Amino acid sequence: MDQEQARRWLATALHEARAGLAEGGIPIGAALYGADGSLLGRGHNRRVQDGDPSAHGETAAFRAAGRQRSYRGTTMVTTLSPCWYCSGLVRQFGISRVVVGEAETFHGGHDWLAEHGVEVVVLDDPECVALMREFIAQHPSLWNEDIGHE
Amino acid sequence: MDQEQARRWLATALHEARAGLAEGGIPIGAALYGADGSLLGRGHNRRVQDGDPSAHGETAAFRAAGRQRSYRGTTMVTTLSPCWYCSGLVRQFGISRVVVGEAETFHGGHDWLAEHGVEVVVLDDPECVALMREFIAQHPSLWNEDIGHE
Repeated sequence: MDQEQARRWLATALHEARAGLAEGGIPIGAALYGADGSLLGRGHNRRVQDGDPSAHGETAAFRAAGRQRSYRGTTMVTTLSPCWYCSGLVRQFGISRVVVGEAETFHGGHDWLAEHGVEVVVLDDPECVALMREFIAQHPSLWNEDIGHE
Repeated sequence: MDQEQARRWLATALHEARAGLAEGGIPIGAALYGADGSLLGRGHNRRVQDGDPSAHGETAAFRAAGRQRSYRGTTMVTTLSPCWYCSGLVRQFGISRVVVGEAETFHGGHDWLAEHGVEVVVLDDPECVALMREFIAQHPSLWNEDIGHE
């Protein structure tokens, strides 16, 4: 896909991540874009805010998009490499593309998705990296909880 | 694990599945049990009831259990083989065991979980099979929507 469009869409996910941080939450955001380029849903991690461990950035965006008959041609944009939970979401529902802000502070299932036919774009965005690096340094146990590490 | 305990726990998931059906929803239920055998959370698919495509039986049970520091020793009991989304959840959070009511009407990611060290017990429960078989026959398009099939 067009890198400029990918970066434009990433800005939406980054906005969500920053909103989550401002609420005292884990700064990971995501957005689901339709095949026609329209924004279907956006969201951010809400573990802290709602006490909800199932609300990752990607699942929050997916949920916000509501019921869809098909995900063909859709793109999930996320500030961080999707964990297995969120990678499984992408694979099960046939989301066609994943734009990943960064995969440096956490390496999830995006290679597995690429192996299964999902178009994966990793942007190595320095703002996404800085956001997570700072958060992990300040809240290591919260971060480990969010990815099920003891 | 003990088959009798597995069947006892499956009864909780089946109760959830039937509650979902009674609400006009997709009859899939799940429950998350702690390492000590206590019930941490239970839930059922709420796609129809809440217009929420992210609420599968397993994710609903996981959500109901709230924030947990560790999932070591926990068991996810579900009436139906977990889809990739729910299998990813189990893998990411290190849930130790999965009890599957049936994998006949739908075969999700439970083999993948077994390959990655999760203890998987498939019960071939006739009630679970009958529930899904009847539902799929009556609502094929709703079922396809729930698993992202066009």
